[in-house]
Amino acid sequence: MTDYLLFDPLELKSFMAAFFEKLGVPKEDAEVSADILLEADLRGVDSHGTIRLNTYYGSRLKNGLINPLSPITVLRESPVALALDGGNGLGMAVAYRAMKRCIEKAKESGVAVTTVRNSNHYGIAGYYAMMALEGNLIGVSLTNSQPLVVPTYGRQALLGTNPIAVAVPAGDERPFVLDMATSIVTIGRVTVYKSAGKEIPAGWAVDSSGLVTTSPEKVVGGGALLPLGGTDEMRGYKGYGLSLLVDIFSGILSGGGYGPKIGRPMQPGDPTNVGHFFAAFRIDAFRPLQEFLKDMDTYIRLIKDSEKAEGQDRIFIHGEKEFELAEQRKKTGVPIMENTVNSLKEAAKEVGLDSIPAPIGKTSME
Amino acid sequence: MTDYLLFDPLELKSFMAAFFEKLGVPKEDAEVSADILLEADLRGVDSHGTIRLNTYYGSRLKNGLINPLSPITVLRESPVALALDGGNGLGMAVAYRAMKRCIEKAKESGVAVTTVRNSNHYGIAGYYAMMALEGNLIGVSLTNSQPLVVPTYGRQALLGTNPIAVAVPAGDERPFVLDMATSIVTIGRVTVYKSAGKEIPAGWAVDSSGLVTTSPEKVVGGGALLPLGGTDEMRGYKGYGLSLLVDIFSGILSGGGYGPKIGRPMQPGDPTNVGHFFAAFRIDAFRPLQEFLKDMDTYIRLIKDSEKAEGQDRIFIHGEKEFELAEQRKKTGVPIMENTVNSLKEAAKEVGLDSIPAPIGKTSME
Repeated sequence: MTDYLLFDPLELKSFMAAFFEKLGVPKEDAEVSADILLEADLRGVDSHGTIRLNTYYGSRLKNGLINPLSPITVLRESPVALALDGGNGLGMAVAYRAMKRCIEKAKESGVAVTTVRNSNHYGIAGYYAMMALEGNLIGVSLTNSQPLVVPTYGRQALLGTNPIAVAVPAGDERPFVLDMATSIVTIGRVTVYKSAGKEIPAGWAVDSSGLVTTSPEKVVGGGALLPLGGTDEMRGYKGYGLSLLVDIFSGILSGGGYGPKIGRPMQPGDPTNVGHFFAAFRIDAFRPLQEFLKDMDTYIRLIKDSEKAEGQDRIFIHGEKEFELAEQRKKTGVPIMENTVNSLKEAAKEVGLDSIPAPIGKTSME
Repeated sequence: MTDYLLFDPLELKSFMAAFFEKLGVPKEDAEVSADILLEADLRGVDSHGTIRLNTYYGSRLKNGLINPLSPITVLRESPVALALDGGNGLGMAVAYRAMKRCIEKAKESGVAVTTVRNSNHYGIAGYYAMMALEGNLIGVSLTNSQPLVVPTYGRQALLGTNPIAVAVPAGDERPFVLDMATSIVTIGRVTVYKSAGKEIPAGWAVDSSGLVTTSPEKVVGGGALLPLGGTDEMRGYKGYGLSLLVDIFSGILSGGGYGPKIGRPMQPGDPTNVGHFFAAFRIDAFRPLQEFLKDMDTYIRLIKDSEKAEGQDRIFIHGEKEFELAEQRKKTGVPIMENTVNSLKEAAKEVGLDSIPAPIGKTSME
């Protein structure tokens, strides 16, 4: 069990926005970026939330490894396609603006695709896909990331955990929001097992010789993650294919980095040159919106009401758990680990902020 | 070991085209459909090739369950989006025409998406994605299919093996061609184990109570396949999400069938109402084509030249094995199981064809 302090979401967001502003990020970008980190915390993707405010974004901004002004330039543009250079800007600010323009284009044209090169880690992929939901559009968000995953039969970590996020509106039901790494688990999950002194399930990852290992130490010490599917017997080459696909769409189509050419974010030096891919589809370009929403509701209910496997009492639609958790955390507060809170206090002082928000409670979690 | 007879690819294709024509399929559609089935055989997807000519397509055409004229109608159309009704036509003919129009639109507009409802099984998904390669475009092909896969925590087969196919051109290297079912394996793979009296690996499928089983009999007798990833521990809900995504794009966006509303193809009665989703992207809408192709080559070489896992001597790019097999089979002939050949002879007679092509050799395979 770990101790957490609980924070009011809006206070946390204001603090993060102020933190970004102190590091030279313009007000609007700072607020958007804070909102994206907060959304990660609310939806339970704690690894991509407040915990990264200083350790990743802050430290890179302070060291001049991210351009706080996020000076985006347009490389190519048509009514349906937009290719951007993110100017080595703050990933969230760059991606938010890119997806916003993609949605605007899709509203006009019916379909639109936007690529971004020369960006940085953009937080949770799902945020940008979900931006499309407001206008009842379908949203797609892909990004590449630092290499941590082996190709099938390989032993070098060449591929990122390259996530796929797609958001689809429904009517009365909650939207379908798939937001998945194309590896089985993230490296963070492996380090949780390492800290707990537990073995990882066979099939999640390999050691430095490329063989499946249950030792989290061997994974972290020269090994790598396996793509979705895992071993060849379980068709891990499909996950490898999906990861490569995301890299091609995000990195090669955009003209950015790919595979091992993506910089390790925590190391000083070259820009990470992360690439993103966004798409948006207007549903009524294909069929009447209301009919679509009704079918989504019917299908979601049909799946949820179907017979459960022995020992199970509920079938989930993608995004459902996260929506419920976000609703709960909006009421009870966002949990932040006590040692993260202490680091945040120091980081706040360092940039010239008086304090961090006062906690509204305490809790313990696994 | 099973005995196979070898056939000249072009003779086999002519025979299949003639067979379709005898069942009322117009010449051009018949030739395209024959080419698609042949391509499956050449690329080693034998389950989707000649073996289905009569058992699936022929029997449905004869019973009036597929309209041989494939009367496609346009539901909605814009420069970037096209929604078609396949008129319960022959899946290959419908899908070929739909993807052709999608590519034409993408050549004009940069990006295009085409949906199809009221179609039938279209053979290998990869064929249509690969159609984009000729013009150096990226091609995407998705389809839903009869329900055989359980959602995570469920026990009813609600989802199809809903494949994802994406083809991306390269320069000197072969193109990247991902063509994957979103289940771990197909039901055909399970029946191979059943016939051989072997157990299936734990994690591929469940029994009728929704629990993982290694008995292929239990899978076929009321069980179901698991989505890519398999169990919850291995993150099978990601494969479930991908399968649902393909169904939403192919079935719900098109206004066609979805999930258990897709008809079982071998059963008489209602149309299957299969849906497809196609997309094409012109690369120079985002960056210069030659730069893209060069980066593809570099990345492919980098992956293939990287260190291999212990006991492995080669890393494959998606599509590579299939391209090599197709080259080989173009020379040595297409293997068809002897009992399939016998059925084909009867089927040929039944539709008024004198004979099937003469085999050019014999072989045995696992």
